Amino acid sequence: MKIAFLGTGVMGKSMAHHLMNGGHSLIVFTRTRSKADDLVAAGAEWADTPALAAADADVVFSIVGYPADVEQIYFGEHGVLAGAQKGSVVVDMTTSSPDLAIRIADQAHSAGLLALDAPVSGGDVGAREARLSIMVGGDAAAFERVSPLFDLMGKNIVYQGSAGSGQHTKMCNQIAIAAGMLGVCEALAYAEASGLDPDTVLKSIANGAAASWSLSNLAPRMLAGNFDPGFYVKHFIKDLTIALESAEKMGLNVPGLTLAKEMYEKLAASGGEDLGTQALFTLYKGA
Amino acid sequence: MKIAFLGTGVMGKSMAHHLMNGGHSLIVFTRTRSKADDLVAAGAEWADTPALAAADADVVFSIVGYPADVEQIYFGEHGVLAGAQKGSVVVDMTTSSPDLAIRIADQAHSAGLLALDAPVSGGDVGAREARLSIMVGGDAAAFERVSPLFDLMGKNIVYQGSAGSGQHTKMCNQIAIAAGMLGVCEALAYAEASGLDPDTVLKSIANGAAASWSLSNLAPRMLAGNFDPGFYVKHFIKDLTIALESAEKMGLNVPGLTLAKEMYEKLAASGGEDLGTQALFTLYKGA
Repeated sequence: MKIAFLGTGVMGKSMAHHLMNGGHSLIVFTRTRSKADDLVAAGAEWADTPALAAADADVVFSIVGYPADVEQIYFGEHGVLAGAQKGSVVVDMTTSSPDLAIRIADQAHSAGLLALDAPVSGGDVGAREARLSIMVGGDAAAFERVSPLFDLMGKNIVYQGSAGSGQHTKMCNQIAIAAGMLGVCEALAYAEASGLDPDTVLKSIANGAAASWSLSNLAPRMLAGNFDPGFYVKHFIKDLTIALESAEKMGLNVPGLTLAKEMYEKLAASGGEDLGTQALFTLYKGA
Repeated sequence: MKIAFLGTGVMGKSMAHHLMNGGHSLIVFTRTRSKADDLVAAGAEWADTPALAAADADVVFSIVGYPADVEQIYFGEHGVLAGAQKGSVVVDMTTSSPDLAIRIADQAHSAGLLALDAPVSGGDVGAREARLSIMVGGDAAAFERVSPLFDLMGKNIVYQGSAGSGQHTKMCNQIAIAAGMLGVCEALAYAEASGLDPDTVLKSIANGAAASWSLSNLAPRMLAGNFDPGFYVKHFIKDLTIALESAEKMGLNVPGLTLAKEMYEKLAASGGEDLGTQALFTLYKGA
């Protein structure tokens, strides 16, 4: 298939390579052209705008930073919807707002296109190893058509329902993580404050009812003082903001999410926005 | 060895059976004598008071309900410390306050005894299958002596340090669980409110960065409306109260734990104290 890929950052670059390695021809666009250099060197075509990239494509993938970037790439003067051919499928894989996913789908339908929202989890490692979890909403027929391409990028690919459902599912994922991070940080802070050896505490608690991915994977980094970004604080705040706004629109009270967002904003305000999410622990150390 | 076992409730009964099956002779005491009937039928001796139970024992185990019960059993007129023989080891396995564990250890030392605090996690199933996680604080020499007995009751037995360290470690466990439960409940409530199928959402999120024991084991019960107690709300509130008081004494700010305790107290106030901890989800359903 002829595929347009928009956004070749840390995630997108690996995903685009997998699609090329799967035998598909790629045309790429990204804001900072140098970030597409090695894809172009590997045989991808370069397009100067999203519209030009989409013009010949059967499927258009995008994975960029913020909802505002998604809006620009889809609705801008030289955006995807201005260029995509009738019958093609547009797939936004950015973690973005469910409402925006619905707006894209509506406008795509008006233009004779199909649309999917398909945010991922699994991070840069998951992208590199083609082991992403892909949460998909939108046109069921489009999901069938795009599935072989998703299979090249991920392992756990689940169709969740109509437009916006992929984004809503990703919000569920982030909501579950958010309050859980408070629990992990507070357990470790308590361990240190009470004079325990936190590494020994992990031997007791990491595999029982307190077990979590965060406790197994992020707690050791917290204790080692390694706050390098696996997942950026600033991106997590973006996600939590979308989730909270979305919950508020639905009239849903989510005090754990509200608290977690406040804590992460406090961390960002104190200079931590470019650290990894495990840096939340520093707020407790400083207490 | 000659072992006294005090408190033969759901947990204690299974644990006592394992000790007898390991070839040790048991003398038991519990507040409601009928709860020891089948242990006595299986060959255990009955004692009318904790002091009488402890009088001939090399090791005294206790696992009762609340810190007040522990105080009564150890410090009461006919308590363990009034009866235990010099050189024996007392082991409280109740989830109780670290300060009380230290008081027991101090008074035990004054009486020529050794002491351990050794709370467990793993619930009734873990007790029945001898797969408990046992978190141990207190006299290192006593830990060595009692280890073969712990091995009969659990799988993950870790010595955490001086008196109170077992209880502090259990608090770390409960703190990590507490805020995590908010995340799990809020993720599911969000899924339902946004019109997703929560079971399908779990397929996307249960094995990635949001993975946790609670999400895998309790979320399906929440969705099925099964709020039967695996672990009672009232007991979790006891634990969170101990943890929060302990954190406050150390000057540690734990907003996630504070919030979780408030939510569980709200659940108890609305009649949920005898439900399982997964019933927290009903607070969100009612919103």
